[in-house]
Amino acid sequence: MSDRIYTAALLVIGDEILSGRTQDKNIAQIASWLNIQGIRLAEVRVVADRMEAIGAAVTALAGGNDYLFTTGGIGPTHDDITIDAIAATLGLPVVVHLKARAVLEDYYASRGGLTDARLRMARVPEGATLIENAMSGAPGIRIGNIFILAGVPHIAGLMLEALSGTLPGGKPLISRTVGCWVPESEVADTLAKAERDNEGCQIGSYPFFRDGRVGANFVVRSTEEAALDACIADLNARLAALGYEPVAEGI
Amino acid sequence: MSDRIYTAALLVIGDEILSGRTQDKNIAQIASWLNIQGIRLAEVRVVADRMEAIGAAVTALAGGNDYLFTTGGIGPTHDDITIDAIAATLGLPVVVHLKARAVLEDYYASRGGLTDARLRMARVPEGATLIENAMSGAPGIRIGNIFILAGVPHIAGLMLEALSGTLPGGKPLISRTVGCWVPESEVADTLAKAERDNEGCQIGSYPFFRDGRVGANFVVRSTEEAALDACIADLNARLAALGYEPVAEGI
Repeated sequence: MSDRIYTAALLVIGDEILSGRTQDKNIAQIASWLNIQGIRLAEVRVVADRMEAIGAAVTALAGGNDYLFTTGGIGPTHDDITIDAIAATLGLPVVVHLKARAVLEDYYASRGGLTDARLRMARVPEGATLIENAMSGAPGIRIGNIFILAGVPHIAGLMLEALSGTLPGGKPLISRTVGCWVPESEVADTLAKAERDNEGCQIGSYPFFRDGRVGANFVVRSTEEAALDACIADLNARLAALGYEPVAEGI
Repeated sequence: MSDRIYTAALLVIGDEILSGRTQDKNIAQIASWLNIQGIRLAEVRVVADRMEAIGAAVTALAGGNDYLFTTGGIGPTHDDITIDAIAATLGLPVVVHLKARAVLEDYYASRGGLTDARLRMARVPEGATLIENAMSGAPGIRIGNIFILAGVPHIAGLMLEALSGTLPGGKPLISRTVGCWVPESEVADTLAKAERDNEGCQIGSYPFFRDGRVGANFVVRSTEEAALDACIADLNARLAALGYEPVAEGI
């Protein structure tokens, strides 16, 4: 396990997210999965189903990170242009992947056969490899450091499962939460000092309003379990010294 | 109401989204609100609580769109750096806004008084105006075409409410949905032709799996009600001609 920090970006492709019609679930899903792989999600972009918008984002994000994941736009319909956009951006021709074609032929054998529209889902940038999709036949696609996943969250999740443990990563980022019934503004200094005194730990403060009361969860993140434990203990002690009752695992 | 298309970008600021801890709700909320204002959400980015990351995104997004909205990072704690990052990017000093200070003094009069940490929430880039927050005192902030909102979704929602109807926009994008129990791959050509034959309309196809069956919702979007109606009628007729039963309002 390396000490180097591996980063990924995520590009969510789809008019349905930008129109507000669909609540995105892939950001949180992929972020959580990446943490377990020891890869830090550094940036997310959401763009429309437009060639130039996809191309510009792919160029910016694939170059600046170890990995780029995309979701959406790999189905059989006219608004599915992710493959064409990524291939154009990389200067690669689009070819039919023979194994993907075979997988689709097999999947659609009992479902009306492989039509032209369905064959679109076997198209890949030349040189790509496949990411297994245990559910609906059409595979995900890897080209270089770009991982092209489905937009439907549970299919994207199956593709992530197929990738689990296969990507070089660093130490997983671990986190623990302390909750407190306190306005975060009353303990802002305390949090800043606790973060400053506990090297290798970050503390995020997430306020909420519930049952007419004000509270906050303080999330401590680190790649080092011992440092994390020490920071949690320190934070608990500081909150208790101020007369608050910290709640383990958060509120 | 102008025929010109107004666009907005959204910048979501926060480690909690990139770590997967928090499911973002602001993208869908702001996208839906923008549609009603006649403003198209063109791009979203999510970045960490880091000055350079925020600055680079603000520069890219504010310049290319009529409006930039940001969420997150305007609270009282050490990880709230949105104001400093945006001011630095714009080359503006950060000053205490007198009205914001008065609002906070009033709000905290019965809640322990205005501490240094709480006073942080009155800091704005010089020249900024305030966006009312009917709930928790701390206002949103407008500087030029940048609208700086809270990260907590229901507070961001209140700030949007305060802005409703105040921003120049074009015709609202309207949409209607037709559902069908059909694999989208079987009607891909039909969808493409319906879109091609109905100018000013876009058709998105969103497949799903439910109760062991495959279906899809086809979302038609347009700024013109008559064109939208005609496209829906056309699509219904094409689906019926193929033997399917389109479901109004989607499945």
